[in-house]
Amino acid sequence: MGSDENLEKIKIGILGCADVARKVSRAIKLSPNATVRAIGSRSGEKARRYAAENGFPAEARVYGSYEEVVEDGEVEAVYVPLPTSMHEKWAVAAAERGKHVLLEKPAAMDAAEVGRVVEACERNGVQFMDGTMWMHHPRTSRMRELMDDPDLFGHLKSVHVVYTFDAGTEFLKNNIRVKPDLDGLGVLGDIGWYCIRSILWAANYELPNRVLAIGDPVKHDAGTLLACGASLQWGDGKVATFHCSFLGNLAMDSTAVGTKGTLRVHDFVIPFEETSAAFTFGSNSRYNDLVTGWASPPVEHVVKNEVPQEVYMVKEFANLVGKVKDGGKPEKKWADICMVTQIVMDAVKESIDKGCEPVEIVSN
Amino acid sequence: MGSDENLEKIKIGILGCADVARKVSRAIKLSPNATVRAIGSRSGEKARRYAAENGFPAEARVYGSYEEVVEDGEVEAVYVPLPTSMHEKWAVAAAERGKHVLLEKPAAMDAAEVGRVVEACERNGVQFMDGTMWMHHPRTSRMRELMDDPDLFGHLKSVHVVYTFDAGTEFLKNNIRVKPDLDGLGVLGDIGWYCIRSILWAANYELPNRVLAIGDPVKHDAGTLLACGASLQWGDGKVATFHCSFLGNLAMDSTAVGTKGTLRVHDFVIPFEETSAAFTFGSNSRYNDLVTGWASPPVEHVVKNEVPQEVYMVKEFANLVGKVKDGGKPEKKWADICMVTQIVMDAVKESIDKGCEPVEIVSN
Repeated sequence: MGSDENLEKIKIGILGCADVARKVSRAIKLSPNATVRAIGSRSGEKARRYAAENGFPAEARVYGSYEEVVEDGEVEAVYVPLPTSMHEKWAVAAAERGKHVLLEKPAAMDAAEVGRVVEACERNGVQFMDGTMWMHHPRTSRMRELMDDPDLFGHLKSVHVVYTFDAGTEFLKNNIRVKPDLDGLGVLGDIGWYCIRSILWAANYELPNRVLAIGDPVKHDAGTLLACGASLQWGDGKVATFHCSFLGNLAMDSTAVGTKGTLRVHDFVIPFEETSAAFTFGSNSRYNDLVTGWASPPVEHVVKNEVPQEVYMVKEFANLVGKVKDGGKPEKKWADICMVTQIVMDAVKESIDKGCEPVEIVSN
Repeated sequence: MGSDENLEKIKIGILGCADVARKVSRAIKLSPNATVRAIGSRSGEKARRYAAENGFPAEARVYGSYEEVVEDGEVEAVYVPLPTSMHEKWAVAAAERGKHVLLEKPAAMDAAEVGRVVEACERNGVQFMDGTMWMHHPRTSRMRELMDDPDLFGHLKSVHVVYTFDAGTEFLKNNIRVKPDLDGLGVLGDIGWYCIRSILWAANYELPNRVLAIGDPVKHDAGTLLACGASLQWGDGKVATFHCSFLGNLAMDSTAVGTKGTLRVHDFVIPFEETSAAFTFGSNSRYNDLVTGWASPPVEHVVKNEVPQEVYMVKEFANLVGKVKDGGKPEKKWADICMVTQIVMDAVKESIDKGCEPVEIVSN
């Protein structure tokens, strides 16, 4: 964080007692510029238990509704880990009351909803950011530097991403991520989000022209997606593929191939370790003369991190909020990145719904 | 190699002075059960130079034609690294003269040609094997053991393979691998072959039901493929993707996801080093409690090899030939594996030719 870091602690209200909020609560505690001001749940009892279990500060308010959090005059920003179908309503409600918004992924059910959230944030002059934590890991900046180097990486030709985990029987029966009325995008919204973001990150957020669902999308009896994938194409010949699934062993691999370099990560969303993260990078890679080995094999890079990646996210969000409080303008890039991710996700969903027909994306 | 290894040296004739034959020549020299008996080229002068540069034994014959190699009564087996369009003619010619056949990849222009080669080998009671060297590396056997373990890997759910290399301007202008009349399958035949084989290897050679070309196939002005990819589906829900290209930095990555395990290799065709090769394997992989790291990250396995992988291939081929000479039957599995690879390649080609329409594969 730069010298412009605002060490006044931004007071954050949390909407809902989601599992993912446990690590974000910890991250808020570990951030020098943020604190938990309130938590709200439909059950006050549940919220109290959650506050105790997660070591919330004594002054944190505990509410039996989301409404009370967004109405709390002391709350400056909200973190929204609610089921996806509730994102738009509560993110807009918070923005309308002048609260900055840190919104869990997937941002919304579709790009129209994201548009209304972003518009509410802009109209009310509040900061928006989605909860894609790996974006804030120092490893990500280091990878970006290498990929931006025309001599080391050249220009991007293809990206291939896989994210799978074995959700298990209980999850597949009862988890909200398979409930059509709560997280209606299923695996595509849950971990497909990360695959799409990772591809767009590699492509500097340039929207593809065309998206095609591939493989054999697997659906829950209730209709939500359990496994799916897609191929993406850009006008300049770049291509990408991803596959996401609740039905395979845990894996999160990304390979990006440039004209001169190759980047590989095997834990792009959740690094294996909390204190450092690795990737391999190859540049101007060549076979040896007999083609029995590599003259220049890729090199492993290890990036140490002082705090877990979600702390970097909270610090950055609170830092941007602090700047707005100091009279600055909200940083627009996080809304833009969120929107292109959701647009691609919508196109994948549309392609699946149309029986794996290609879907064209028309840029505005 | 087992105790049944036949140490009588099988006398091999090489058809053509291809680049790839340099390492296979070396492998024949390094194999205890094989020797170079002859080399033939359209130019006797070129063959002589090649024999000298590659340290062929003094007794090796040098011919100014392929015909003379297959007519040489001392030649027991041929290695055929000719351009793909010449494979059928010369493999069949060799088989008809009772010579065993080690055929470079891609085996042929299509499965019908492979069928005629295999039929000629069967009719003449000679051994057939294609030149897919990585199949013979001890790493491959070790990976197979792990993937065959139902507790460690479960059953296969998806495979994702990328093989790219930066062929460069000179290659793209003049290399036979972009000439329609010589290697008409372009990048698909050259390195797509390995992608398809790697997928089929992971799937225990079960043919997919459906193949769909994806991405945006790139073609040479002459019409040969320079970059392409495909998605494969099986009836049981397994899926696979691959991407191959002459236009990106060198990369050869494969990720196979099972219900319980994950396998990753980054140098599946040409190991980084000649003396050992690594892969990572994860089993029953889980996040930690807060989902801020992995409770059980994948483990790197390193497999040492006594000789380069192509030596294992030559030894295995010569060993099988030795068994036939001792009255045994040719080993059929290599022909079967070659045929399924070519069938899938044909389907990918057909899908590309049809503008990326899906192609069904009907098993016999």
